[in-house]
Amino acid sequence: MRATLMYRAGDVRIEKVPDARLIEPTDAVITITAACICGSDLWPYKELEPVASGRPMGHEAIGRVEAIGKDVRRIKVGDLVVMPFAYSDGTCEFCHDGLNTSCVHGGFFGVGGPAGGAQAEAVRVPQADGTLFALPVAADSALMNSLLTLSDVMGTGHHAAVSARVSAGKRVAVIGDGAVGLCGVIAAKRLGAEQIIILGHHPDRIALAKDFGATDVVRERGEEAVERVRKLSGGTGVHSVLECVGTEQSMLTAIGMARPGGAIGRVGVPHYAAIPASQPAFFNNLTVGGGPAPVRAYITELLPDVLEGKIHPGRVFDRVVDLNQVPDGYRAMNERKSIKVMVTP
Amino acid sequence: MRATLMYRAGDVRIEKVPDARLIEPTDAVITITAACICGSDLWPYKELEPVASGRPMGHEAIGRVEAIGKDVRRIKVGDLVVMPFAYSDGTCEFCHDGLNTSCVHGGFFGVGGPAGGAQAEAVRVPQADGTLFALPVAADSALMNSLLTLSDVMGTGHHAAVSARVSAGKRVAVIGDGAVGLCGVIAAKRLGAEQIIILGHHPDRIALAKDFGATDVVRERGEEAVERVRKLSGGTGVHSVLECVGTEQSMLTAIGMARPGGAIGRVGVPHYAAIPASQPAFFNNLTVGGGPAPVRAYITELLPDVLEGKIHPGRVFDRVVDLNQVPDGYRAMNERKSIKVMVTP
Repeated sequence: MRATLMYRAGDVRIEKVPDARLIEPTDAVITITAACICGSDLWPYKELEPVASGRPMGHEAIGRVEAIGKDVRRIKVGDLVVMPFAYSDGTCEFCHDGLNTSCVHGGFFGVGGPAGGAQAEAVRVPQADGTLFALPVAADSALMNSLLTLSDVMGTGHHAAVSARVSAGKRVAVIGDGAVGLCGVIAAKRLGAEQIIILGHHPDRIALAKDFGATDVVRERGEEAVERVRKLSGGTGVHSVLECVGTEQSMLTAIGMARPGGAIGRVGVPHYAAIPASQPAFFNNLTVGGGPAPVRAYITELLPDVLEGKIHPGRVFDRVVDLNQVPDGYRAMNERKSIKVMVTP
Repeated sequence: MRATLMYRAGDVRIEKVPDARLIEPTDAVITITAACICGSDLWPYKELEPVASGRPMGHEAIGRVEAIGKDVRRIKVGDLVVMPFAYSDGTCEFCHDGLNTSCVHGGFFGVGGPAGGAQAEAVRVPQADGTLFALPVAADSALMNSLLTLSDVMGTGHHAAVSARVSAGKRVAVIGDGAVGLCGVIAAKRLGAEQIIILGHHPDRIALAKDFGATDVVRERGEEAVERVRKLSGGTGVHSVLECVGTEQSMLTAIGMARPGGAIGRVGVPHYAAIPASQPAFFNNLTVGGGPAPVRAYITELLPDVLEGKIHPGRVFDRVVDLNQVPDGYRAMNERKSIKVMVTP
């Protein structure tokens, strides 16, 4: 089959690889109907040191179940499924708590670990029963784009909002105008936020953020953005900050614009060894939470809103490529010419 | 009147100073019945650069109201009151949210700011109506020691537990065997924790922690303490860590022993510029919260338990000194010969 391999920063290739196949009795193999390029794929795209055998890429997908191992009970061959970016057994104490990304038998797709990548014709899915979510729609559903976001970005934006303790009437700032930040806007709106301030300056992203429920736009950066958000939120800062970037600067900005007693939900993989501004965060009684989103657990909550047309996170896709065009898709996202790229093998 | 002034690290003096007096119409003046030396007073005792006029020390007290400004309505002359370590108006949006330590008209006692110190014969209390809590007991009540802890350490231990999201059935670790850590044990027990692991090695402190509800003791430090706590808590770490020290090492230890999805409540004033282990905290979806405890807000919740004899936080006092002996009290606490010193002017 064909799959996407990254050999070093900037070097993405589509190659013939051995077909995905069952290894463990709890595995499934799915053929990919639609996959994505993720903002987090851009970190290795910028930084990856050369790897001899290439890293299989991609961790978000909808697909059709082709084969199941002998211990798979819940998932059936032929099911149309969402594949979250992490696999999980669905039964351990962490899965039980809704924290599937800490599953004791779990792991991540597309990071060079034992599981493969989803930017491919097919992928082996460990812990199929716990990982995959069978969709109640046909493959030609008009909702497919939005359903695909349940594999990562919509669940991740929701996790940012939950970790930042968004609830009815709260003032919220969203740092990051990528697909996760935009889904964070949807999530904040959905949870009843009164004010949603998006930080960004790309006209197309801002327009989408407004459609999703952003009430204010802050185009400044750094200290100026902090000042502007504080002014917009009544002088004291916002209750909740969704930190969807992952740099030290963005975390510093987040801490600066949070209101005393407020919370920061971080979902951008942190590229900083220590969380800055320890003392301001302390003296303002700020809470910093978040991490890899347990999107598998969130599907149950978010799916009805997608099916009923209440939210449309699939609008973050502004480009569709086939497998051969995946390198172009990386380039477009890396140059911020595209918000999020769908891959239809 | 006589008051405690610190002139530099290790240099604590009792001196004649101008009598405490009303300045603002919202002020009260109280004569101190009992005050304390706090673990946080040991930071300047170790580190304070020379200050020409001396810093008035002390921020925890019970006292008798001697005089009130013309705008004071709720507090009356003659009231026996608890004075929390921070003053607050009781009416601003943050006080309304129960975060009195972020009051827009608030501040702290005994830090060299406009308010004086409580290790003195009397103190001026700004925002008297919002700050002081009138006690429903006589000055000779046997509960006085425990009531005095409501000015800081019991409320601060409670804040650590609340910030660490302690609730029924949770596994908890407490870092710090000072008065705050010991009160954190009381708070964790009170909130229903199933397991309470205290880190410490002083026999008297450990004995008290056990009396207060600690189920396990870890005498190791650093990485060994992390291993031991993880083993004791079923291999995966504890749900809640009460970080009652404030060093980078103690925070690193806290992050290491928290279970995925767990929370760390930090109440030790942080002596580190950045919170370490950003990435482990992220990948384990840990929450870091806490700050200066809004003890004024917590009195309402904690006072009934003191009055009914359900909790006995006053047992943290193992030494009583008069004003002249305050320098000895600092020395005893700094040498860890005393857990907490009461000052009866």
